Amino acid sequence: MADTHHPSDVERLREQARQRDAADPLRHLRSRFDLPDGLVYLDGNSLGALPHGVADALQDAVRRQWGSDLIGSWTSADWWGAPGRVGDRIAPLVGAAPGTVVVTDSTSVDLFKLVVGGARLAAADPHRTVLLVDEATFPTDRYLVDEAARLLGMTVRAARVDDPAALRGPDGTPDVAVAVLCHVDFRTGELFDLPAVTRQVQQTGALVLWDLCHSAGAVDVRLADAGVDLAVGCGYKFLNGGPGAPAFVYVAPRWQADFDQPLPGWHAHAEPFAMAARFTPAAGIDRLRTGTPPVLSVLALEAALAAFDDVDLGAVRRRSVELTGTLIAAVDALLGDRVEVVSPRDDARRGSQVSLRHPQAYAVVQAMIARGVVGDFRTPDVIRLGVAPLYVDRVDVVRAVEVLRAVLDSGEHRAPEFSRRATVT
Amino acid sequence: MADTHHPSDVERLREQARQRDAADPLRHLRSRFDLPDGLVYLDGNSLGALPHGVADALQDAVRRQWGSDLIGSWTSADWWGAPGRVGDRIAPLVGAAPGTVVVTDSTSVDLFKLVVGGARLAAADPHRTVLLVDEATFPTDRYLVDEAARLLGMTVRAARVDDPAALRGPDGTPDVAVAVLCHVDFRTGELFDLPAVTRQVQQTGALVLWDLCHSAGAVDVRLADAGVDLAVGCGYKFLNGGPGAPAFVYVAPRWQADFDQPLPGWHAHAEPFAMAARFTPAAGIDRLRTGTPPVLSVLALEAALAAFDDVDLGAVRRRSVELTGTLIAAVDALLGDRVEVVSPRDDARRGSQVSLRHPQAYAVVQAMIARGVVGDFRTPDVIRLGVAPLYVDRVDVVRAVEVLRAVLDSGEHRAPEFSRRATVT
Repeated sequence: MADTHHPSDVERLREQARQRDAADPLRHLRSRFDLPDGLVYLDGNSLGALPHGVADALQDAVRRQWGSDLIGSWTSADWWGAPGRVGDRIAPLVGAAPGTVVVTDSTSVDLFKLVVGGARLAAADPHRTVLLVDEATFPTDRYLVDEAARLLGMTVRAARVDDPAALRGPDGTPDVAVAVLCHVDFRTGELFDLPAVTRQVQQTGALVLWDLCHSAGAVDVRLADAGVDLAVGCGYKFLNGGPGAPAFVYVAPRWQADFDQPLPGWHAHAEPFAMAARFTPAAGIDRLRTGTPPVLSVLALEAALAAFDDVDLGAVRRRSVELTGTLIAAVDALLGDRVEVVSPRDDARRGSQVSLRHPQAYAVVQAMIARGVVGDFRTPDVIRLGVAPLYVDRVDVVRAVEVLRAVLDSGEHRAPEFSRRATVT
Repeated sequence: MADTHHPSDVERLREQARQRDAADPLRHLRSRFDLPDGLVYLDGNSLGALPHGVADALQDAVRRQWGSDLIGSWTSADWWGAPGRVGDRIAPLVGAAPGTVVVTDSTSVDLFKLVVGGARLAAADPHRTVLLVDEATFPTDRYLVDEAARLLGMTVRAARVDDPAALRGPDGTPDVAVAVLCHVDFRTGELFDLPAVTRQVQQTGALVLWDLCHSAGAVDVRLADAGVDLAVGCGYKFLNGGPGAPAFVYVAPRWQADFDQPLPGWHAHAEPFAMAARFTPAAGIDRLRTGTPPVLSVLALEAALAAFDDVDLGAVRRRSVELTGTLIAAVDALLGDRVEVVSPRDDARRGSQVSLRHPQAYAVVQAMIARGVVGDFRTPDVIRLGVAPLYVDRVDVVRAVEVLRAVLDSGEHRAPEFSRRATVT
């Protein structure tokens, strides 16, 4: 089917985008990434693009540090300190002080550590028998909360964490030990009000545990300012640390000395080389570590974080909001009600993605990928377009909507090769 | 001090070593590694040397798979299947069938999964309230067993696992749910009799969990033949997967369908992309996975395993025994009782390392490193010389003992720069 829309709509949007891009003081950040020519990559919320310098850093890590210096690199290249060193590099990106963030394990494993350790902190009050988890949370978070509750003899309540009723039992007594929620809903892109929810949870005496997977690196998270208790986040989305990059954990300074986590390996020990039969936790955030870290992946993440050098997260957030706003405006102008905008239209409540609902979402995403616009699909009917504000431009998001319209106009998503099968994030 | 020994001792040992090396059908394997010229590397039991091909494989993983193909590599490069694919590559090295080994997380985290899951399998018998852990185990294993017991409401017994009395309570009733031990003692190099201990443990109705960190890749482990229940091992020692390479887990086929592990992330789910609120475990060994794996580290391990292509582990074990035997013979000939050989002299009871006791062990190790012989120190007084049988030759181990003698003769280990500080494995 031919394009039935007035060409001036697209032309006008493109031209506006071009002008705003040209005037954007953060536009140079895109040059810090190796992006394939012509690709519109709107899946950086799933796997961040490759920053310059990572490949060379890994070659050095492999050939010199590992190949030549061998075991000595644990000290000479400070592999031992890398999890804390990289944690300190992430800390300012999430508004945390030095010594409060460490890179270790995966988000899932770290969430388990924080939930169990948090519940142990709350155990002084025997009425706190509930782990509250957001009902729309990323599934793994729920699985791990379920397991923590099972092992601790607690119960799980799945509800909207920002609903005050969720924090109290049937008799109105606060009964939550730890409340776990994602800062950004992975399906809808809804951004929770981190300071307000933190206050609300803490006012009932519970601890709050934020999953920052879909906000760290794109939203100006301010953990310390908000007085957040615990947080976990992922290294491979907006932090661009590479596939399956290790996660990071945050523990507020006030909890560190008593934090009693359930997976204490020798890298968390106060004296790792004493090889003592009994565990004595390290003084600071290192007590959240477990076993030997995947050093190559940690060093890739470290090199990737150079993309954030001299970058103000407040400015990144403003750019992100404008990009997602531009995307929604383009949808309104070019698609009308042919898709439903699932993400909040209120800028303050929208993370760095725009989710669109369409009954053939899976096939539409595949057809868009075939045209060089990479988004992803979330079951059952969501087209998810992530906007990585360091390297996505306004012309990209306009182009994405233009391609989406072309796919829907042509009906090419109905082709057999785009039929349903599993996809990955 | 001048060399006070008869030179013919060293000459004779060197010449024997040279001849035997020349006749060794496995000697070509050394050329599969990038080893610095002139270095005698006897710490491959801590960090394996760099195999050829790893650096190029990682460049491809970073530049093409991540940088160009981006999120699509989860399917096009099968990142999703990499943990199982690499597990299947490790499986024959430990005598396991395809589909019984998966690469995931660290040894520590995996040990926790196996101990808790194993205890749940044994929970049908309410008398099985004890987790037995070898008293000489690597400390982390003990910490994680302690935590598992704490969370499960069980007790920990630390004893020699091969002592039959350790498997029974004071009244003689078998009370052990899971017995955990290292195949090779990390300090002494003692190799436990895996088939015999497995039988002994299982005869009392307990499950056995072997930690293969110091045997996988150097000893011809035969998990399936011995009927082992559970095992964990590390990727970065004799498997040469790089610093902090992910670990692997083994679960015997008979336990897989009911295995209920405590850290079930979405990568362990039967339908990961259904994003279901409830966890349903994958059918096979994938249920031992947790969150998104550190792909770059997994792919480095995969490339490293090419060093084992067409290698028979039985032949590797024979070579290892001869190398450690040659080392001990050289100690006897050149050092007499100036150091104590801690490792068993019985070939069948010795892993792929030789531990020597000396009161100034730390300084001696440092002085040897300064002379180009890299071993390591284990508190309080152990010089640990690892023999990686794929790339260590007989001339290397003779040279190591020669250097050790030179250090002791000269007293150079008493120099201030070799005084005590922390070191790493």
